Amino acid sequence: MSKLELGVCYYPEQWDPSQWRSDAARMAGMGLDWVRIAEFTWGLIEPERGRFHWDWLDDVIEILGRAGLRIMMSTPTAAPPKWLIDEHPEILPVGPDGRVRGYGSRRHYCFSSDVYLAEAQRIATEYAAKYGQNPHVHAWQIDNEYNDHDTVLSYSDAARAGFRRWLAQRYGTINALNEVWGTVFWGSLYSGFDQIELPNGLVATPNPTHALDFRRYSSDRVRLFNKTQVDVLREHAPGRDITHNFMAGSFEFDHHAVAADLDIVGFDSYPLGNLMGSTLSEKEKRRYLRTGAPDYQGFHCDLYRGQGRGRVWVLEQQPGPVDWAAQNPSPAEGMVRLWTWAAYAHGAQAVMFFRWRQAKFAQEQYHTALLRSDDSLDQAALELAQIVKDRENLPSTTRVKASVAMMLDYASIWAADILPHDDDFPNSHIFREWYTALRCLGVDIDFVGPEDGLEGYALIVLPQSMIVTPDLTTRLEVSGAKLLIGARSGSKTTQMQTPSNLAPGALADLTGVRVARVESLPDIARESVQLQNGQLFDFAGWREIVETEANVLARFKSAYCDASPAVVRSDRATYLAMVPSGALLHAIMRDVLEWAGLKPLDCDPDLRVTRLGTLHFAFNFGDMPKPLPGGGSRRILIGSDPVGARDFTVWQVN
Amino acid sequence: MSKLELGVCYYPEQWDPSQWRSDAARMAGMGLDWVRIAEFTWGLIEPERGRFHWDWLDDVIEILGRAGLRIMMSTPTAAPPKWLIDEHPEILPVGPDGRVRGYGSRRHYCFSSDVYLAEAQRIATEYAAKYGQNPHVHAWQIDNEYNDHDTVLSYSDAARAGFRRWLAQRYGTINALNEVWGTVFWGSLYSGFDQIELPNGLVATPNPTHALDFRRYSSDRVRLFNKTQVDVLREHAPGRDITHNFMAGSFEFDHHAVAADLDIVGFDSYPLGNLMGSTLSEKEKRRYLRTGAPDYQGFHCDLYRGQGRGRVWVLEQQPGPVDWAAQNPSPAEGMVRLWTWAAYAHGAQAVMFFRWRQAKFAQEQYHTALLRSDDSLDQAALELAQIVKDRENLPSTTRVKASVAMMLDYASIWAADILPHDDDFPNSHIFREWYTALRCLGVDIDFVGPEDGLEGYALIVLPQSMIVTPDLTTRLEVSGAKLLIGARSGSKTTQMQTPSNLAPGALADLTGVRVARVESLPDIARESVQLQNGQLFDFAGWREIVETEANVLARFKSAYCDASPAVVRSDRATYLAMVPSGALLHAIMRDVLEWAGLKPLDCDPDLRVTRLGTLHFAFNFGDMPKPLPGGGSRRILIGSDPVGARDFTVWQVN
Amino acid sequence: MSKLELGVCYYPEQWDPSQWRSDAARMAGMGLDWVRIAEFTWGLIEPERGRFHWDWLDDVIEILGRAGLRIMMSTPTAAPPKWLIDEHPEILPVGPDGRVRGYGSRRHYCFSSDVYLAEAQRIATEYAAKYGQNPHVHAWQIDNEYNDHDTVLSYSDAARAGFRRWLAQRYGTINALNEVWGTVFWGSLYSGFDQIELPNGLVATPNPTHALDFRRYSSDRVRLFNKTQVDVLREHAPGRDITHNFMAGSFEFDHHAVAADLDIVGFDSYPLGNLMGSTLSEKEKRRYLRTGAPDYQGFHCDLYRGQGRGRVWVLEQQPGPVDWAAQNPSPAEGMVRLWTWAAYAHGAQAVMFFRWRQAKFAQEQYHTALLRSDDSLDQAALELAQIVKDRENLPSTTRVKASVAMMLDYASIWAADILPHDDDFPNSHIFREWYTALRCLGVDIDFVGPEDGLEGYALIVLPQSMIVTPDLTTRLEVSGAKLLIGARSGSKTTQMQTPSNLAPGALADLTGVRVARVESLPDIARESVQLQNGQLFDFAGWREIVETEANVLARFKSAYCDASPAVVRSDRATYLAMVPSGALLHAIMRDVLEWAGLKPLDCDPDLRVTRLGTLHFAFNFGDMPKPLPGGGSRRILIGSDPVGARDFTVWQVN
Repeated sequence: MSKLELGVCYYPEQWDPSQWRSDAARMAGMGLDWVRIAEFTWGLIEPERGRFHWDWLDDVIEILGRAGLRIMMSTPTAAPPKWLIDEHPEILPVGPDGRVRGYGSRRHYCFSSDVYLAEAQRIATEYAAKYGQNPHVHAWQIDNEYNDHDTVLSYSDAARAGFRRWLAQRYGTINALNEVWGTVFWGSLYSGFDQIELPNGLVATPNPTHALDFRRYSSDRVRLFNKTQVDVLREHAPGRDITHNFMAGSFEFDHHAVAADLDIVGFDSYPLGNLMGSTLSEKEKRRYLRTGAPDYQGFHCDLYRGQGRGRVWVLEQQPGPVDWAAQNPSPAEGMVRLWTWAAYAHGAQAVMFFRWRQAKFAQEQYHTALLRSDDSLDQAALELAQIVKDRENLPSTTRVKASVAMMLDYASIWAADILPHDDDFPNSHIFREWYTALRCLGVDIDFVGPEDGLEGYALIVLPQSMIVTPDLTTRLEVSGAKLLIGARSGSKTTQMQTPSNLAPGALADLTGVRVARVESLPDIARESVQLQNGQLFDFAGWREIVETEANVLARFKSAYCDASPAVVRSDRATYLAMVPSGALLHAIMRDVLEWAGLKPLDCDPDLRVTRLGTLHFAFNFGDMPKPLPGGGSRRILIGSDPVGARDFTVWQVN
Repeated sequence: MSKLELGVCYYPEQWDPSQWRSDAARMAGMGLDWVRIAEFTWGLIEPERGRFHWDWLDDVIEILGRAGLRIMMSTPTAAPPKWLIDEHPEILPVGPDGRVRGYGSRRHYCFSSDVYLAEAQRIATEYAAKYGQNPHVHAWQIDNEYNDHDTVLSYSDAARAGFRRWLAQRYGTINALNEVWGTVFWGSLYSGFDQIELPNGLVATPNPTHALDFRRYSSDRVRLFNKTQVDVLREHAPGRDITHNFMAGSFEFDHHAVAADLDIVGFDSYPLGNLMGSTLSEKEKRRYLRTGAPDYQGFHCDLYRGQGRGRVWVLEQQPGPVDWAAQNPSPAEGMVRLWTWAAYAHGAQAVMFFRWRQAKFAQEQYHTALLRSDDSLDQAALELAQIVKDRENLPSTTRVKASVAMMLDYASIWAADILPHDDDFPNSHIFREWYTALRCLGVDIDFVGPEDGLEGYALIVLPQSMIVTPDLTTRLEVSGAKLLIGARSGSKTTQMQTPSNLAPGALADLTGVRVARVESLPDIARESVQLQNGQLFDFAGWREIVETEANVLARFKSAYCDASPAVVRSDRATYLAMVPSGALLHAIMRDVLEWAGLKPLDCDPDLRVTRLGTLHFAFNFGDMPKPLPGGGSRRILIGSDPVGARDFTVWQVN
Repeated sequence: MSKLELGVCYYPEQWDPSQWRSDAARMAGMGLDWVRIAEFTWGLIEPERGRFHWDWLDDVIEILGRAGLRIMMSTPTAAPPKWLIDEHPEILPVGPDGRVRGYGSRRHYCFSSDVYLAEAQRIATEYAAKYGQNPHVHAWQIDNEYNDHDTVLSYSDAARAGFRRWLAQRYGTINALNEVWGTVFWGSLYSGFDQIELPNGLVATPNPTHALDFRRYSSDRVRLFNKTQVDVLREHAPGRDITHNFMAGSFEFDHHAVAADLDIVGFDSYPLGNLMGSTLSEKEKRRYLRTGAPDYQGFHCDLYRGQGRGRVWVLEQQPGPVDWAAQNPSPAEGMVRLWTWAAYAHGAQAVMFFRWRQAKFAQEQYHTALLRSDDSLDQAALELAQIVKDRENLPSTTRVKASVAMMLDYASIWAADILPHDDDFPNSHIFREWYTALRCLGVDIDFVGPEDGLEGYALIVLPQSMIVTPDLTTRLEVSGAKLLIGARSGSKTTQMQTPSNLAPGALADLTGVRVARVESLPDIARESVQLQNGQLFDFAGWREIVETEANVLARFKSAYCDASPAVVRSDRATYLAMVPSGALLHAIMRDVLEWAGLKPLDCDPDLRVTRLGTLHFAFNFGDMPKPLPGGGSRRILIGSDPVGARDFTVWQVN
């Protein structure tokens, strides 16, 4: 791994051309390597059909390039111009309430629109043909944040038509669909694909396979949209890296599939912006109000690094208060620097700050930047200077494979959304809780998808893999790793049906478990789990009544099926019959790590330790200094022992 | 009354025909008498217009019948097939937001659609002509759960046209309507019935008589829909009992009116499914999480027994966790058996379990059944075995008329919905609170509607009879019973106008009360009621300032009109000027029973005592054993004294 | 100022003509001077196009006039008749969800409809031509409560067309609009005004200048609608006062602009009706449940007196429980009288009670009145008798200019709605909190708008003036007054852009402050402000990091930018870098008054002291007697010292 590269997002069109040259010089002078431009420029470049205004962008590229900056160019498809919408209003997306979502902001297009797909291909070709081989343009971003403003699911006429075609292709005959969906239920048999409607606005809940297939279809449309532009860029911009900026905490389309077509997986990192709306507790939100959650950066870098086959970039890094959360606090001094190095420690090759200068007009005026709108330096610019210095103190190194892999499967998350059985089922939140529990025990983590290779791990954890294929089961078995398997895993087939051997379906042999019943308990009526050592923990929500001849590590205390198994261990797998959190999850995870032959390291809850090749990082998200965990002789490269409050330390082991 | 009959809901179309024969044999072997089939089969029987596939259903009937099971056949109108919707999309219902509610689940029809009414009549005729005289088909259910998914009120074009016709018939001239509605208010006089719109989506609140008439019209459409199929069955299935499965806690149409056309009133009993969404307190929900509310079964059996002129059946009985509540806990062991006998004790002639085998696909996969989807026995099947044994230990007996009658009038509930004056007004919840207060004092209860005979009761209670006619007043007077009359009773005429003598209108003479003012207090500003003995209770919400020369049993302590009467008693009636609950309601109810010459029996709040002829039942919903209340010499037939936790005891008095 | 005039709102059309004569006689006998009629009579007067039924209204006017009552006639445009809607359904307003809001209540028109504007002009002309010079008709009210039921903003086709025309007129060229809105952002440049859509139902948030301009346009349409009728009345009813009844707590259109065209500013006073839905704390709501908030009457009289250039009337005064709040308590005995005199003390020339007799039918049956629907006297009638007696005991006097002025600017309130940056930003609530803080220190207050004269005040307070023009700055400077300036004041230009010198923009020189950053803190993570004397107060929400060389009176204690200035004082201005409330606001306000050379008077929080020329009023909203504040020799005209609970005292200083 080479050294961390730094960049900034720049909107030259929002500033007077007289400022471009000094901006470029200042960027380079600050130590920035990259500048990302042109995301929302379609309306400027092509103000009416077929009339192109490239001159200003030519100038910008020339000025930036000559200043020594590498340019990441964007295709502008996240914001089609008004004239195109007026020509083809059917491009607009449609909400679940059946209402067209109008022009006047951004992302006003429907992924199902073939008209828009062709237009996106056309404009991407124009951009790529123009700048694909420009010597200053070293990389391309396609579009911007695919699921922002909930645009992946659109209920348009185009979506209905596309979904029908997709179903016809998937099932071949309508009888095959009827069988898989089980339309005999409620007598809703179809006699042709043209009878099938979208699953919104119904009288009661839709058929779950119907709903899941619509999620799959919608995800496939995102992949098609992205791949269409990838193909354009491969042709016109050979050798340039292609990326897209995924969002944090977004699970609406299959990121594994889209990432497979990219060179680099980018993501946008807003540790405070995403805090208040997250599933963290009120206490945690208060504690991490000005630092972000300790695992925010790590979770997303690890997840997207896996999808990027090792290549992950932060394409937008929060520089100060954002403008779009319910409340928008400032990061504590030093946090922008800390987040930057946390990204690096988790494998990010580059970090770009969003944005160069705070806007004077339009929607994002309250979003901070490196510079204020009056051109003065804001806090993030000061921290950038320190980051550049830090960079000189760190040797090149490479992140190595972790001992623990976490499986994340988008279809399983959709499946539990569609059939929750417990309206408070934590679903995607489970991944974050397991990640945090493991990280607090000092473990580094790789993410894997259900199609990925599974070799070489001591432990593979499946927090919520509702849909498990026999093929995946075989690969889990062959991997040789110990397995930790969360509740409801394997409980549905890919067809969203109950396995004929009941849950956990394909995992039955590995786990030695049969789920005889599922129930869910409201938070007002919590029950208990008791470990073999007698320790009691409370829980609520999802619970399974399992039958097993395997080793029972914990049992429920309940008014129903008292003493039924809560944690079961076979030779290869530890199976959980509920969704633990907090201290219970911590205790289970500790035990599982030891069982897998890994040494858990008890870390302070505010501290995270990460290894990057020979480098060790410790990030302190608390307001008190914390001693470095572990012992031995160290050579500290940055920071100190103890790690300062809201600060970090980097060291090598002698 | 004959012995309890047992049955099960069966969907043979969802299973391989090779299973039908063994299913039938197992059902019979388990002691089941009845099997209900064919509810959602229209799409299977008539996959395209006019082409009928009866063969499989012929087979099913033959197999079940030969196994000795009696069949309840259903008309399939709760789920019209897609081809019919495609032919006539105007059949679909329209929500209060004006949006069409689409195909893809069930109940996707509008009661106002004459097109659908004719189609429903047509298909019912097909079913009835085919199986009406089949020797195995002993009873018919029409459609399924009329108000499920809020389908009684539909705001379609058909509804607008139908409502206009209904109004023309009701009022004759538009001037008569103008006068009754008081359209001179806000200058909204109509000059023709074709000017009248539906009362949804207005700028401000609709005229209340307009709103009430739309509720009446919508209810009449449900009755018409039901009656149309009743007439078909009377012709083609002579001598067979006809029923429909009402829902628990549903007040959206006039169940008295629909029930008048049926032979048996069925209802669907989901004690846990309905718990979390109920108006019970959080504490009660926690306490009864795995048992259901102690009065759930009794309330609904008593209510629908009254409407069924003594004939009430449980057509769907919860067997374990359901799949449709926010959380879905398991019933405690033994509860399915307890609920079954509680239904019987309250007069149910039959209990059918929903469903035979848990579904492997489609919407209800998490809904438990007698069998799991892999054919193994689930909890309810084990309890069924016990129920069959219990049945042998009980002699035949007959439920006798109760001493106390509770009046329930749907129009009064709609009226208080339309003009609440207190957004938290408990409305239909009042009936459940009064029922529980009386039951905890050991009283058996009959329900009556405003048109029913009132003779032979010692006490008639009117929890919330907002609309009282002079005719009802006369019948109350003639009945000779003592009366307990809740606040706002008699406060509106059938025209939804204020009586000229103010509230309680037609009840003025009986109660000796005139309501000079009405106010409502938010829960954050509770005030007090003081009984003559000095006891203080707090209350909030509805309060009336009444003038009276009758006996004042309790007075308000208030910052407004301090010491004004809260409970007033004339010779015949006790009138409440607020809506009591909890301890205050209990104290009032105790006093009222004594006043009516009935002996209140103080029961443990977890215990319910019910008399069925010579049999006495005590049901214990608590987690501790409870001694049988009362004394004397008993012959225990089932259970023990004390009554076990979550268990019941049946005895005869020697 | 002459003596208080009294009136009542009367709907003779709702009662039998045989009652009119006795009603008139009773009104006059009770001491009422005015009667307001005919608000909702269009449908009665013109039941079909061009056919007019004036006879009954002629009779009513003659009867009332002969009884000695002065009539306020209303134009009936708040409720167009159904035949007009059927002729022109495009008159109906459209909600933010894009749905037409239907006929069946009132205010079912869109201010943007030119069709309706012409119809309103036509019917107003008919009324004015008929009664403009009638000797009994002394004043006119136009329409009724313009923003009731949220009708100012309508998203109709007419609104789109009108908005485009308005923008073309405001900006001249589309490029000028592009520049001001900053449409280069997200590449949303427009090439013509016909490309511009309404700002509802978008994918993400609209451009803020787009949104603000739509608010301005919508407000202008209200002014145009009102002015059109004013012009009709000026022509046909010369010499009669013209008014409209504004609502309390409504900020949806520019009331300054509409008021400029009226002779009298009327408003509708519902102290209890507006309490529960207000921004007061739960504790305050409980405390003032039966009295209304102590500053309700004063705030609105002062605000609308300013807009009315000294002439404010209460056109509807709450007489008892209303029918439209979530809960509707009774006022404590005496409160109707207290509210009436509080209005007078704050400059109201007349108070009219809503309404004469409680309705027997239609929407407002639970709204109390002077008489019950059975014609008996209700509480308010008894208090009216006392008010008439009080009136005889008070000399004529005149309200004098206050020492303190409060600036209220509607566009600033809209601006903070559009770009809150803190979803809990208190916005219009700030005005009420500052008003209360000042009133609890014994200060009388005038309200001013941004265009008003500012001379003669010792102190001008700007609670939330987000948009400040250079012209306003100059007039503030010239006024010579001390200034108290709330956070975010001056932070946007009229174009909704960030000032080039950052916030507070045009106020930079006066305040000596530059706002380097803005953040917002959730209520769960409160931080502290410390005064120079060491006192600590907590706060949350909006916070600014300011740079200043002026005097720092208080500093933040924070995990970010600890010790940065919280309160800053220059020669002329005290600037607040957060939004104080409660004790912190009180402490600041006390200090500011002293700094401005005014003597704060510490009042009991339940007590309000008001001066009206030589008269002093003390209103006690508490439940305990309170001594009169201040000292000296007094001549008490009404009431006593101490002031009784929920009572008031009037005195003159000897």
